Amino acid sequence: MNAIDIALPSSADAALRARAARVIPGGIYGHQDARQLWPGAPQFMATGEGAVIRDVDGRDYIDLLCSYGPIVLGHRHPEVEAAAAAQAALGDCFNLPGPRMVELAERLTDIVDYADWAMFQKNGTDATTLALTVARAATGRKGVLVATGAYHGAAPWCTPVPVGTTPGARADLYAYRYNDLASVEAALEAVGDDLAAIIVSPFRHDAGLPQEMVEPAFARALRALCDAKGAMLVLDEVRCGMRLGFGSSWAEIGVAPDLSAWSKALGNGHPIAALLGTDALRAAVGQIFTTGSFWFSSVAMAASLKTLEVMEREGAVPRMHALGRRLWDGMSAQAAARGLDVSLTGHVTMPYLCFPGESERALTDVFAAACARHGVFTHPRHNWFVSAALTDAQMDRVLEATDAGFAAVAATR
Amino acid sequence: MNAIDIALPSSADAALRARAARVIPGGIYGHQDARQLWPGAPQFMATGEGAVIRDVDGRDYIDLLCSYGPIVLGHRHPEVEAAAAAQAALGDCFNLPGPRMVELAERLTDIVDYADWAMFQKNGTDATTLALTVARAATGRKGVLVATGAYHGAAPWCTPVPVGTTPGARADLYAYRYNDLASVEAALEAVGDDLAAIIVSPFRHDAGLPQEMVEPAFARALRALCDAKGAMLVLDEVRCGMRLGFGSSWAEIGVAPDLSAWSKALGNGHPIAALLGTDALRAAVGQIFTTGSFWFSSVAMAASLKTLEVMEREGAVPRMHALGRRLWDGMSAQAAARGLDVSLTGHVTMPYLCFPGESERALTDVFAAACARHGVFTHPRHNWFVSAALTDAQMDRVLEATDAGFAAVAATR
Repeated sequence: MNAIDIALPSSADAALRARAARVIPGGIYGHQDARQLWPGAPQFMATGEGAVIRDVDGRDYIDLLCSYGPIVLGHRHPEVEAAAAAQAALGDCFNLPGPRMVELAERLTDIVDYADWAMFQKNGTDATTLALTVARAATGRKGVLVATGAYHGAAPWCTPVPVGTTPGARADLYAYRYNDLASVEAALEAVGDDLAAIIVSPFRHDAGLPQEMVEPAFARALRALCDAKGAMLVLDEVRCGMRLGFGSSWAEIGVAPDLSAWSKALGNGHPIAALLGTDALRAAVGQIFTTGSFWFSSVAMAASLKTLEVMEREGAVPRMHALGRRLWDGMSAQAAARGLDVSLTGHVTMPYLCFPGESERALTDVFAAACARHGVFTHPRHNWFVSAALTDAQMDRVLEATDAGFAAVAATR
Repeated sequence: MNAIDIALPSSADAALRARAARVIPGGIYGHQDARQLWPGAPQFMATGEGAVIRDVDGRDYIDLLCSYGPIVLGHRHPEVEAAAAAQAALGDCFNLPGPRMVELAERLTDIVDYADWAMFQKNGTDATTLALTVARAATGRKGVLVATGAYHGAAPWCTPVPVGTTPGARADLYAYRYNDLASVEAALEAVGDDLAAIIVSPFRHDAGLPQEMVEPAFARALRALCDAKGAMLVLDEVRCGMRLGFGSSWAEIGVAPDLSAWSKALGNGHPIAALLGTDALRAAVGQIFTTGSFWFSSVAMAASLKTLEVMEREGAVPRMHALGRRLWDGMSAQAAARGLDVSLTGHVTMPYLCFPGESERALTDVFAAACARHGVFTHPRHNWFVSAALTDAQMDRVLEATDAGFAAVAATR
């Protein structure tokens, strides 16, 4: 190695970054910007299979990010990909939908107990946006309560960075704090008789912050308030749907929304989103107009049908719970053994790690970089995701990597 | 046939409709609602290949709708599908993008003369919405001029049926009439010093109305006005991009926008959209936040790269122009021979047929139904699309069907 080698890295990743910088603003945008990862993280991936992904320089990682949620059964799951290929051999995008659309609507309304109907889209943002449109059409009102800091997508009304959007896009939104009923009541005071909906995530998973499970009493209170006001309760299942449970994330606490938005896990990586709703809202859907060029395409629906079939048959959700519990407990013990104060929050299948009191996140960078050196892909400022594809042996290696991560953090003290 | 057969149709289409009615509001929604087609049209398709599609009851049609635009090379094009399958064998949706993203950005900025960079999405609406966000970020202004009746997608700011949306979503939009410079100037008067952008389609293709090619002087005036006001000219290529020309639809008239939104034809049916822009807007993109779970997925990008390669190599655009010209001229002659007054408008590759003075569209229904009986899938209230997959022999059959359509219309007189 000499100075020229360092100044002009010859890695495939560096070469792609240089090309990308010419034809993509900033070289990248959105949530897949590697500048959000640890220093030295790659920007480009080449391939993957099961729980293992490989970057363009041939480095393998056990995947604890799962494409930010979509991968539940592992990359290139053979049955899911075979179902997608079989549908592709028939066709994908026609003038009219195909039978897969009906089958998937039947399947989702079967799995999700309160759901009477389904509509399909391409982005989670499509589904959350459509949920508010249906709620507003149903109620003839405009006001929507949104939790401060919650991520409901990247449309003008909800993008976390409002640069380039107009105040009008958010004019009828009212803020409350997750799990804080008094803040909901204050927001209801502000919205008056114009409440169309309250939108809420199954648990609090705001970007870059510790997570918080829902207090069942809070969820029940939201349901009661919506009922009292004739407003719609919208559950945003986009990030965590089909991970907390196989069906509604709030099934266990017995709170049913009127509408719910789904995406990520539905298709094990294939592009699909869904809005689910109740019979009472059918007429409202009939009054609105919504569509997309690829919303009726069959390949992603076939992949989703197979994903759900395999998830149910193989018990993917309990498997993810067991894997997540082992990761959570293992990391907690590792940190304690090193005398490190760590915060692990959220659901075991989607843990968020931070070091309390740390503002600059230098320590999570150190941790994630060490994990990467030990062949495990985590994220220093986003919750992780486990997939059911992780073997016990791979989880052994994950825990070796996290222990190395904690060792690296401890060494900074 | 007896009364029971008619009352209880046993077709696969009818069975799917009955199932869909239970689990999808109204049985269907959006642009693929068969109630927009001719009476008796199917609601569900089974398969297709090249220029031929087959409904779930086994009826074949030569496709003159091309999935409302995405299909340019024909259904299940062997090379495009092979490229998609090859990429699927490597993987689609990871934690980070793959090399295909860079290659596609390089390709599109090469093909589209004014474009210096590209960003990718899933829906045309994503791209048009993002264009306005970038324009507003770049200018620090809010006002956008939108042509009355233009379709720029189905988000709250642009859906043609605003039920369920809020006035705020459209608060900063100002209406002008296509090809009417005086109306643009009046709108500029209204927007004052708050003009962020003018959004315009390459030609006027409003839903359900006769189409109109752009007057070059109008396009040049929009460019000059944007320059004078420091505002962005946004070209919405979603519906017609890569059909008028291989590159910018306004290349021929020499007017370059600052931003352009693309989708449909880019991937020959695979779900992809793109925003293209100029170097001056890179910094603005860096200030905004936009993303989607599947925006970085490689399969649709691989399909798009192959689609563009085949289109260029095989001269798909000139082929579509020749086919469209033959269809246009043939139909015009057929109508004249029968003494029918018809209106054929728009671009030859995307013709819109109507019978002047007709308000209820009973005649276009009669026409489209006759075409369908003769094995050709048209649309009675939307522009059609030709694909390069149509053979000359298939165009012979198309023209037999359209002649039967005109005969059926003439028979109503």
